[in-house]
Amino acid sequence: MSDKEFMQQALQLAARGRFTTSPNPNVGCVIVNVGEVVGQGWHKKAGEGHAEVNALREAGDKARGATAYVTLEPCSHHGRTPPCCEALIAAGISRVVVAMQDPNPQVAGRGLHRLHQAGIEVEFGLLAAEAEALNRGFLKRMRTGFPWVQLKMAASLDGRTAMANGQSQWITSPAARHDVQLLRAQASAILTTSQTVLADNPSMNVRWAELTPEVQAVIGGEDLLRQPIRVVLDRHRHVNDDQTLFTTTEAQTWRVVTQPAEDSSRWTKTLVVPEHQDNIDLVALMMVLGKQDINSVWVEAGATLAGQLLQAGVVDELILYMAPTLMGTDARGLCVLPGLEHLAQALRFEIQDIQQIGSDIRIILQPISVSA
Amino acid sequence: MSDKEFMQQALQLAARGRFTTSPNPNVGCVIVNVGEVVGQGWHKKAGEGHAEVNALREAGDKARGATAYVTLEPCSHHGRTPPCCEALIAAGISRVVVAMQDPNPQVAGRGLHRLHQAGIEVEFGLLAAEAEALNRGFLKRMRTGFPWVQLKMAASLDGRTAMANGQSQWITSPAARHDVQLLRAQASAILTTSQTVLADNPSMNVRWAELTPEVQAVIGGEDLLRQPIRVVLDRHRHVNDDQTLFTTTEAQTWRVVTQPAEDSSRWTKTLVVPEHQDNIDLVALMMVLGKQDINSVWVEAGATLAGQLLQAGVVDELILYMAPTLMGTDARGLCVLPGLEHLAQALRFEIQDIQQIGSDIRIILQPISVSA
Repeated sequence: MSDKEFMQQALQLAARGRFTTSPNPNVGCVIVNVGEVVGQGWHKKAGEGHAEVNALREAGDKARGATAYVTLEPCSHHGRTPPCCEALIAAGISRVVVAMQDPNPQVAGRGLHRLHQAGIEVEFGLLAAEAEALNRGFLKRMRTGFPWVQLKMAASLDGRTAMANGQSQWITSPAARHDVQLLRAQASAILTTSQTVLADNPSMNVRWAELTPEVQAVIGGEDLLRQPIRVVLDRHRHVNDDQTLFTTTEAQTWRVVTQPAEDSSRWTKTLVVPEHQDNIDLVALMMVLGKQDINSVWVEAGATLAGQLLQAGVVDELILYMAPTLMGTDARGLCVLPGLEHLAQALRFEIQDIQQIGSDIRIILQPISVSA
Repeated sequence: MSDKEFMQQALQLAARGRFTTSPNPNVGCVIVNVGEVVGQGWHKKAGEGHAEVNALREAGDKARGATAYVTLEPCSHHGRTPPCCEALIAAGISRVVVAMQDPNPQVAGRGLHRLHQAGIEVEFGLLAAEAEALNRGFLKRMRTGFPWVQLKMAASLDGRTAMANGQSQWITSPAARHDVQLLRAQASAILTTSQTVLADNPSMNVRWAELTPEVQAVIGGEDLLRQPIRVVLDRHRHVNDDQTLFTTTEAQTWRVVTQPAEDSSRWTKTLVVPEHQDNIDLVALMMVLGKQDINSVWVEAGATLAGQLLQAGVVDELILYMAPTLMGTDARGLCVLPGLEHLAQALRFEIQDIQQIGSDIRIILQPISVSA
């Protein structure tokens, strides 16, 4: 097998952590001695062993003189666990192949430098794009302080989300709803509004029974499921303690307000964010969430917040589920975009992926930023 | 090569006629003698040689004892050309493999019967679904009297067709517009409304320069291009002689009205169709077009006619081009569906195909008929 194939194997291992590692990155490691895989490891959860350490443990003495394939630059600093660089050096690894550097300011090249200093042959850049895709949230937060923001929407073919009378539940099929569960489960936080909470009384959590057996196996048990933090924009403090949100206590529930005040004990945390144009400042909100170690935000809300986030330019990815139905021009629209009068002002996107999910369509898009 | 491979070859030949044969069906024929292809033919145009006759001409004496693969049951009646059955018999063909029976009441099994009577080994049903797909319009008209109706729509991701101020041109990319030309060129007729003609002053024709070199080669020259008949719903006689429609004289232009009256000489034909609920009776319209030998109708109109056709249940296929933009809730909607109040009344479709066309998405759907 080639370097590339071993790195692909390390990437697959890394991906197993995508439901649990937040706020840490997904990392995989494969240790190869004379063409034989002698150790494999992946990072499962903050506070638990890093990928390299797990792989070295499996390799034991066979690590001596071996090559380590790691999807992200090994850490060189003392965090909750000792630095992986020292473990690789101590184990007698002679070559380290890294997919990409870690932009974490505590690492950022120091890991590669430390290994090189210790006389280890170091290479990096192999399958870097794939490694990047594994950790969009973590990497964006490390580079910019902001989380990766995914806006989930669901509509009919004619861009409608509800009938004029408000009737909206289950526009999309069970397959699309399962897909939402899978993507939700990978987010650090789910962002919604008091309007959505009051209108739909949702639980906004990940439901174990709706994950596939494969995903359940990767997570390793319902008790190990990491629930994304639910973040509710509620500056008028309309959400009361009776909401379903508070009955699913395994997930944290944060309130976002603009004026400090005492909050009910049912909220795990209250974040105070500045106002901007008589609304929560959405750019400041994302910065605050980044400071709270939120790598990625999955937004499920209505047409108003969707439009505000898009117009504020904080959305990285639009995930649009489209039911093959027509609801007509009287039905409610997908996205409120005030002030948009000319075709040239329409928000533009680049298609990343189009898939049929059950009887529905899922389109993933990224905004094309317009130069101001 | 197997029977199936020879039939696939015949189907490919048949498809070459898809821009020109209307109102006739697309038919291909391959003649094989001891494993060797000795003749190939396809039907190009009404009044010109049928596929079988063209293939027999190429095969000459080598047709004796050979097998003929034909995508549609050979005709047994004297039309504009002599019956193909007689030609196959006279040439000494010993076996005929047919993809599907011809539902044309003038054929409908008589061709197969005639060949069998003449001592020829006859088989049918090989790749029947593929043969069916080649002639959706012709086959539907033969079976029901109605043409195959394709409704073309273009919208943003949020189902909008124009800004509130009416600005709409070029929502979709050049690639999508070329795709429209390709599909238009295969239709027998293009249906539109006086509103669309007055608003956009379109030519609604097929533009040679916008067809790919491959399609141009199949058609064989701009002078051989068959222009779909333009059918304009204009019961209030709003369309005057100055429209661009009338400057592109290579295509016929038909007016549809509800009351007989003298018409300007620039209209090729005027069809009188009954009224229904203060509108043109759209079911009657399709029946009238079928009687005019229109196999397939390609609809390009606004949100009102789109909704009326869908609610009348006469649409066979929805072809939706979706530009990756968001235009906001103030922009104009895709499809007017009056009286639609409950989610259960939403029009439902089944996805046939999803493709990225340039920077846009094309979704082909078929209505799911709801039992009344």
